[in-house]
Amino acid sequence: MVLHTEARPRPGRADRDHLVARLARSARHRPRPVADLDAWLDARTRANPYEITEVPFAELTGWSFAPHSGDLVHDSGRFFSVEGLHVRTDGGPVDEWWQPIIHQPDRAILGILAREIDGVLHFLLQAKMEPGNVNGMQFSPTVQSTPSNYLRTHRGARSRYVEYFLETGRGRVLVDVLQSEQGSWFRGKRNRNIVVEVTDDIEPHQDFVWLTLGQIHDLLHRPNLVNMDARTVLSCLPGHAVAADPAAPGIAAAVARSSLADDDAAWQPLLQVRNWLTANKADRTLVAHQVPLRQVRDWHCGDADIRHRSGRFFRIVGRAVRASNREVAQWRQPLLAPCGTGLVAFVVRRLGGVLHVLAHADLRPGYRDIVELGPTVQCTPDNFTGVHRPAYLDLVCSDQVQVHYDVLQSEEGGRFHHAVTRHLVVEVGPEFPATTPPDYTWVTLRQLTAMTAFSYQVNIEARSLLLCLRALT
Amino acid sequence: MVLHTEARPRPGRADRDHLVARLARSARHRPRPVADLDAWLDARTRANPYEITEVPFAELTGWSFAPHSGDLVHDSGRFFSVEGLHVRTDGGPVDEWWQPIIHQPDRAILGILAREIDGVLHFLLQAKMEPGNVNGMQFSPTVQSTPSNYLRTHRGARSRYVEYFLETGRGRVLVDVLQSEQGSWFRGKRNRNIVVEVTDDIEPHQDFVWLTLGQIHDLLHRPNLVNMDARTVLSCLPGHAVAADPAAPGIAAAVARSSLADDDAAWQPLLQVRNWLTANKADRTLVAHQVPLRQVRDWHCGDADIRHRSGRFFRIVGRAVRASNREVAQWRQPLLAPCGTGLVAFVVRRLGGVLHVLAHADLRPGYRDIVELGPTVQCTPDNFTGVHRPAYLDLVCSDQVQVHYDVLQSEEGGRFHHAVTRHLVVEVGPEFPATTPPDYTWVTLRQLTAMTAFSYQVNIEARSLLLCLRALT
Repeated sequence: MVLHTEARPRPGRADRDHLVARLARSARHRPRPVADLDAWLDARTRANPYEITEVPFAELTGWSFAPHSGDLVHDSGRFFSVEGLHVRTDGGPVDEWWQPIIHQPDRAILGILAREIDGVLHFLLQAKMEPGNVNGMQFSPTVQSTPSNYLRTHRGARSRYVEYFLETGRGRVLVDVLQSEQGSWFRGKRNRNIVVEVTDDIEPHQDFVWLTLGQIHDLLHRPNLVNMDARTVLSCLPGHAVAADPAAPGIAAAVARSSLADDDAAWQPLLQVRNWLTANKADRTLVAHQVPLRQVRDWHCGDADIRHRSGRFFRIVGRAVRASNREVAQWRQPLLAPCGTGLVAFVVRRLGGVLHVLAHADLRPGYRDIVELGPTVQCTPDNFTGVHRPAYLDLVCSDQVQVHYDVLQSEEGGRFHHAVTRHLVVEVGPEFPATTPPDYTWVTLRQLTAMTAFSYQVNIEARSLLLCLRALT
Repeated sequence: MVLHTEARPRPGRADRDHLVARLARSARHRPRPVADLDAWLDARTRANPYEITEVPFAELTGWSFAPHSGDLVHDSGRFFSVEGLHVRTDGGPVDEWWQPIIHQPDRAILGILAREIDGVLHFLLQAKMEPGNVNGMQFSPTVQSTPSNYLRTHRGARSRYVEYFLETGRGRVLVDVLQSEQGSWFRGKRNRNIVVEVTDDIEPHQDFVWLTLGQIHDLLHRPNLVNMDARTVLSCLPGHAVAADPAAPGIAAAVARSSLADDDAAWQPLLQVRNWLTANKADRTLVAHQVPLRQVRDWHCGDADIRHRSGRFFRIVGRAVRASNREVAQWRQPLLAPCGTGLVAFVVRRLGGVLHVLAHADLRPGYRDIVELGPTVQCTPDNFTGVHRPAYLDLVCSDQVQVHYDVLQSEEGGRFHHAVTRHLVVEVGPEFPATTPPDYTWVTLRQLTAMTAFSYQVNIEARSLLLCLRALT
């Protein structure tokens, strides 16, 4: 694999400031109405038929339970495995548990190509089917592929356009950061979120389309169209990628002002936000040990699924796939199927006239660094029907808040079966206390964006909501 | 534990720029000659007698080998343990090995108090004995303590001044970042590096002393006086903390210019440096699994030590300690004793008139994120007497380079026995190629400093050398 060592196009300072203006222009631009994009995606789905069927573990060709551990592994030793985890922690209502967890040492490339077309920055998205999707195809990054795929471990075709992210000097790097994924379902998972701007005249393959940020923002107002991988990559673009006039009234302008607000206009400077997150990372204790899957207490492995005895949390299931436009035409694989629809919510409030989100220090066993900045609320409400209701869950579902955004979005369909998360942005008024519990704090959108520039600071759910907030403009 | 939630002193932008100037003033200021500090440290050592004796594992009171795993653990389950690690990787001359490793889920606070005295910023350092030190006492952070200590798991006294780092509103936070430690000896270790500036009139306890950056830089020219923990915390101070006039000739001015150089004067912009590090983090594979210590191949556990059959790498030994100025008066503990003196070196070269260091993408099994930016050379030369000589090792020890810094510095004496590392900064001329292998790149000191602001980017050896480079001014 070739790394970047030679001299490449060097953006100067003016050029970097210019990027923010170019992103804002792209966010204002909508060359085609969103209905056209819906129709295009439908056409791609019809042109690329696929079939998903449920299969018991005994028929999950290529996969088996390892003799000693009982871990669910691929015969090649690659892709991913389902292992056991024993967790002890000092925080929260439960201080010890066992669970299955997906272990995938490979890091995927989640890469989006950018290009100026008619003076406006466009992003190359792909209509991609994943076996766990609720709805067939979704708009996905240009490349969404692990080395097992792009190095052709499965002997399939090479991922299209992957050379732009692997080879030197193919373009200008706008984003390049390793980010975590779902910390309760993946152990130590990290993907490379990368955006490369090219000047090559790339004629997109028929399953690919160039979209402006404005068009992508429109798509985010409809359920399950922009996949999780595209959302996380786009959330890492240097902020301010908002279209609204900060001087106008309403939520769009408030988002724009918060995206541009400097430290002096914020509730607290960025260094203090980082101090809060570091204190939470340092003060919480979580010790997670890998254990054989067969030793995971309270979970039952049947013929067709692995499930918790309570019926809550998630199941591990098997699926057979036949597809017409993927690197390989058919395969079988396990998927993690959450029990119930997830909910992530940002409570927002104006402080000193500037919109702030209420961030939570979110503790998960799969994070590389224990705690990341997460949404105000992040849970599967069905898991909390009795006691231990998460803080602010009842508030965000009540009529005491003003709802600015309420759309279902999908989690990654390559690993998760029908994993759908309700994304909420709700505003509270000045009666909501500005003083927070120690594991919550107020941040501006500009500060949140600044935190996404480095790894393992902002979790995937908060990054997804950040992009949805920008879509309000 | 109290976290920061209330309003605290809020530095404005001018105030932040001002900090850089205040650090530079502190670096120029030397109220007492360095010989006085030597004498003070000697006096503290005489006033605080201690005794270290070798003990076999059978007499390591409080510690034992766990029945099933053979891990070396404390009876309380706290402090740290010595476990086994099985490592597989795709890079380097060896692609699979087993080793003992220290596991310490607790994160220490490495905290330094800062205060303006007579208009000059001073830092409160402590004369501290650690059982593994080669020379008794060393200058250490104000607080260097794990929760096991400051929460008094061992029933000793509470660490002095720890309240400034645990309680809200005691001062202004100048640095607060989790950083890794030695990635071959610790598994996933991270410490909180924190500097808090206070305005309280703190009269230092007799084992503590207020020093300017200039005095600390002087101490860094003598071997084993500033301990590893103090070096890592001070390296994270916002850069430019250099005293020299950038316009003057010589290495001092070159360091100053490199510390102030903006992206346009650098070989490559910061975003490209981060792109290089992310690519190296993403493209390397390392899978480390915890295994029972008794299953670690090629290592032998005797009565008095655990050692590799080759006699190389390190040993695990036991020590009994009697001390007069520590939280507890006597204790016994294991230590990791490296076999041989370590060597870390930065090769520096002028590119476009600006001094750059040749950074290496350093892969270690104990890192939370596989690869961190490290020195050009980092090894124990005795481990490489035959083949597989690390790149540039022979160069940095040759007469083809100009030596700017060559001083022995100590690793942390609380976990390591007589661990000493030769710190080298050597300059090469224009005959040295500017084009680098893919796992090396050129960075300015300003860029290196910027990278220390976030976790797990710059390894402890590179941070230590960064501080030594600043001491050249």
